[in-house]
Amino acid sequence: MPSNEYALRPIGRIRTPHATVSDNVPIQGRMAPLSEGAVELFPEYAAGACDLEGFSHVFLLYRFHLGTDERLTVVPYMDTVPRGVFSTRFPHRPNRIGVTLVEVLGVDGTTVRVRGVDMVDGTPLLDIKPYVPRFDAVENVASVRTGWMTPYVNGVKEPDVVRTSSETDWLRERR
Amino acid sequence: MPSNEYALRPIGRIRTPHATVSDNVPIQGRMAPLSEGAVELFPEYAAGACDLEGFSHVFLLYRFHLGTDERLTVVPYMDTVPRGVFSTRFPHRPNRIGVTLVEVLGVDGTTVRVRGVDMVDGTPLLDIKPYVPRFDAVENVASVRTGWMTPYVNGVKEPDVVRTSSETDWLRERR
Repeated sequence: MPSNEYALRPIGRIRTPHATVSDNVPIQGRMAPLSEGAVELFPEYAAGACDLEGFSHVFLLYRFHLGTDERLTVVPYMDTVPRGVFSTRFPHRPNRIGVTLVEVLGVDGTTVRVRGVDMVDGTPLLDIKPYVPRFDAVENVASVRTGWMTPYVNGVKEPDVVRTSSETDWLRERR
Repeated sequence: MPSNEYALRPIGRIRTPHATVSDNVPIQGRMAPLSEGAVELFPEYAAGACDLEGFSHVFLLYRFHLGTDERLTVVPYMDTVPRGVFSTRFPHRPNRIGVTLVEVLGVDGTTVRVRGVDMVDGTPLLDIKPYVPRFDAVENVASVRTGWMTPYVNGVKEPDVVRTSSETDWLRERR
């Protein structure tokens, strides 16, 4: 491995109702808040799950493991215009790391039941971080600008219909 | 590299006022909202920065590149009790990925000026994601539980004094 690279190892798998990318995967977990799943930590990471049950929400960090493309300009699911990938949450991005905020329903050993999953079943987990509004949210919502996404996140579409509709769609070439 | 690992490559560096881990590094960016820095994307990623100027806040994903320890039980900076690492934001964690929400002050080519940095200068950047309250925040703040952190994030300590005080402290052995 070149010295300018880091080797990352999955610490578990995320189980979701979405067997493939064509299986109604929500484009964002918060847009499918009732979509239930589970984080299954590998047994050797069990000790890391202590104290997690005190938190109502966590960020899951994971690897977009399907596909190998890492693009800089993409047409996002919600848009028809090419955008710089760092202004999007598109999966085909440098390093292919995903971040999703989920609700914790319960912790049982190495299994964390969660709500609001938007991953394909079996997605490799890289980290779990507790959600702390003081660290992770902007208190003054009126001061937040969301660029090109603004019309899409302001309720133009119903949350639960904003999904990728097919594998072709998900993996499509749009540069 | 084993087949169960992913090779990640830095896409840039984060410049901050904190030359070393002993240099008053805030424990969280939102607790030092005026701490200014810059993201310097490597030139080959320039196209990815388009459209970023429309967003007021972004998440920076980065590698905790100092130290090699990856622990499962840690004593957090804010606490004196050992905790499961996934209930903390401690740097010495599996895969050592950090996530910090920062305010965007301006975008100039491959340089993104930001406020609220809590990294050591030169920290390798892995990704930039736009902050979208609809995706990343829990609307009903009263429904959020923050476990063991609750007394610490509810204003017990002044934000700008919650810093790591020394390199020894930052790297200390607390298992």
